[in-house]
Amino acid sequence: MSGKLLVGQAGGATSVINASLAGVIHEARAHAVETIWGMSRGAEGALAGEYLDLSDISSAQLEIVRRTPGAALGSSRYKLGDEGADRLLEFCRAHDVRYFLYIGGNDSADTVHRLACLAQLRGYELAAIAIPKTIDNDLPLTDHCPGYGSIARYVAIATMDSAKDTESMPTMYPVKIIEVMGRDAGWVAASAGLGKLSDEDAPHLIYMPERPLSRRQFLQDVEGVHRELGHVVAVVTETLRDERGHPFADPELSGEVDDFGHPLLRGTASAMCRLVQAELGLRSRYDKPGSLQRMSSLCTSPVDLAEAEEVGRAAVRCAVTGETDRMITLVRESDRPYRSRTDTAPLAEVANRQRLLPEAFLASDRPATTEAFREYAMPLLGPHALPQYARLAASRVVLSDSP
Amino acid sequence: MSGKLLVGQAGGATSVINASLAGVIHEARAHAVETIWGMSRGAEGALAGEYLDLSDISSAQLEIVRRTPGAALGSSRYKLGDEGADRLLEFCRAHDVRYFLYIGGNDSADTVHRLACLAQLRGYELAAIAIPKTIDNDLPLTDHCPGYGSIARYVAIATMDSAKDTESMPTMYPVKIIEVMGRDAGWVAASAGLGKLSDEDAPHLIYMPERPLSRRQFLQDVEGVHRELGHVVAVVTETLRDERGHPFADPELSGEVDDFGHPLLRGTASAMCRLVQAELGLRSRYDKPGSLQRMSSLCTSPVDLAEAEEVGRAAVRCAVTGETDRMITLVRESDRPYRSRTDTAPLAEVANRQRLLPEAFLASDRPATTEAFREYAMPLLGPHALPQYARLAASRVVLSDSP
Repeated sequence: MSGKLLVGQAGGATSVINASLAGVIHEARAHAVETIWGMSRGAEGALAGEYLDLSDISSAQLEIVRRTPGAALGSSRYKLGDEGADRLLEFCRAHDVRYFLYIGGNDSADTVHRLACLAQLRGYELAAIAIPKTIDNDLPLTDHCPGYGSIARYVAIATMDSAKDTESMPTMYPVKIIEVMGRDAGWVAASAGLGKLSDEDAPHLIYMPERPLSRRQFLQDVEGVHRELGHVVAVVTETLRDERGHPFADPELSGEVDDFGHPLLRGTASAMCRLVQAELGLRSRYDKPGSLQRMSSLCTSPVDLAEAEEVGRAAVRCAVTGETDRMITLVRESDRPYRSRTDTAPLAEVANRQRLLPEAFLASDRPATTEAFREYAMPLLGPHALPQYARLAASRVVLSDSP
Repeated sequence: MSGKLLVGQAGGATSVINASLAGVIHEARAHAVETIWGMSRGAEGALAGEYLDLSDISSAQLEIVRRTPGAALGSSRYKLGDEGADRLLEFCRAHDVRYFLYIGGNDSADTVHRLACLAQLRGYELAAIAIPKTIDNDLPLTDHCPGYGSIARYVAIATMDSAKDTESMPTMYPVKIIEVMGRDAGWVAASAGLGKLSDEDAPHLIYMPERPLSRRQFLQDVEGVHRELGHVVAVVTETLRDERGHPFADPELSGEVDDFGHPLLRGTASAMCRLVQAELGLRSRYDKPGSLQRMSSLCTSPVDLAEAEEVGRAAVRCAVTGETDRMITLVRESDRPYRSRTDTAPLAEVANRQRLLPEAFLASDRPATTEAFREYAMPLLGPHALPQYARLAASRVVLSDSP
């Protein structure tokens, strides 16, 4: 094939984003693309002239990189403006880049869309394709996003593990709050309930940003569960806001924004712990796995890893047929056994749009998910995805005296 | 055997504390102990008359419980006073309890020691044996403590994973701080370096409580690593204090104490992030895995799991020979291949004593551990304990023009 292929990674890293990169490189070779360049740190590095030559990476090295969490090329959150798009297109023209593949989420889809439009406007033949990647699972027009199955598995297991701690010491620390990632959508928090098999099992409360939460309701919820079970495990999205739109996070600790102006709320769980202690007098602890939740190679879903590679391959196949301005999507073909295939969607319908949790996945009467959500999410975690835990089925000793 | 066996779990739960319980039950059955009772929530539940009958637990159930994180009997941090010891001994006498086995750390060793001494003083024949369990790894007279190998594996992997995030976005968030458990000893933080193979690999800085740290030195360290590598991953013990003994943790968020008066410091990493941002102008993020680090079944070390079961079994063997007032210890017999055996130590020499990291395990010139520590710790994580990650070995493209 004539022309170079340029590939980049953008946005928050995941445990499978390198599998998409490996898929691109493998498939490009299969189509005899001779020169493959990688952008260092996405569009940010590209505009600084930082490129890596990936043409001669050995298959053995690629195999280890494929399973290594993180963005091997380097990533960034860079908002491509008009001038940046101009310069990037000029670079492509100057170096005969004919395939532009960009692995990322909503913001990256916007970057690819701008470049694709500009190329068409200027009459430069460029196949610009977005490869979906976001643990937020909030891209529209795809059944789910690569990265989600793995973080969902992590959060489901972490909730099971952390709950066993709270169950162990209910009188000492009856309340546990687990803070997980998410912006406007609660897909990650929702996955916390996938290991729950009974009412007694955690999580007892899942707070997702689709449903604002008043402080009064939160305290009532915690008190109710504590009364019934003696302990409470709640999972909360880091961006949770109350009914007036105010974040639960400490005002003095939030206020940071990323390069797109998205607020980076911090300290939500810690603020909720202090609220519970102050208002209910219940000792509380919190876990904030932070970046660990999207970077765990041990929790990587084999389904997610395979699909992440496949969307990378599909993007190359799409690009070499001359298509442009599209994002690769995943279409679910069957649930049992789980099967998916790739398709594409026009970027104009993807960029800067978010898919929130649909009503059908949210319980109407309590902060929880539905059976429909479980059926949607479980196959994405892979087979035998969750550990099996047990409680002791032992009867209480009835004493005639007291000690 | 005549007489009942009473077993309890105390202190923070771990992913292998139930393996010790399973070991006790299996071995008690092998010695034909007919009645096995479990204390609910350790001495706290015992004094409230809460016992479980474990005599008829099925082997199938025990096998799942053995691999389930958390204290299946329930745990507590309960300081056994003179009156409590009196009541507990009277209970043993009233119910013909002849074997008292208690799975826990330093504070639990003290509980067993008190009870053993009181029984001897009152002429009641009771075999009171402590079974070691603490992720803090700070019990004296044992090579290491059950629970440590698993948390060490968790922290080593978490550091590798989290570092891949920071390496992915060095220009956005150049500084990552990971807050891990520990009281006065830095064994857990020390394990963060076990996956480090080169100077470039994380962690670049490990702060352990054995070495107080001035804020000025901390900022110098971070600045130095950032200048050299462009990003910094630091691992810090949650209780870290400065050279004047003041904790790094937010004063308004710390101040909590547990039932033994140990301070529960919180927010150390978050305070350090704010310091870095304010003084060096570098964007920082932190991960605080909290209870996840000691509860992860996926990170459980097979060596640790087997040893946890074995110390439970050894305690029963020790008790049925009539020994009392002792703790089971682990003795390392060989490093390659790793082999250990159990022994015992007098509780008077164990209780309320802490083993800090020895000088030989701490680098003298920088905040890091030594090769001697790696040789000590690695076998405890089990074989093939850490994932293999790679960076892309790709050369920079040399451009004649700029984009």
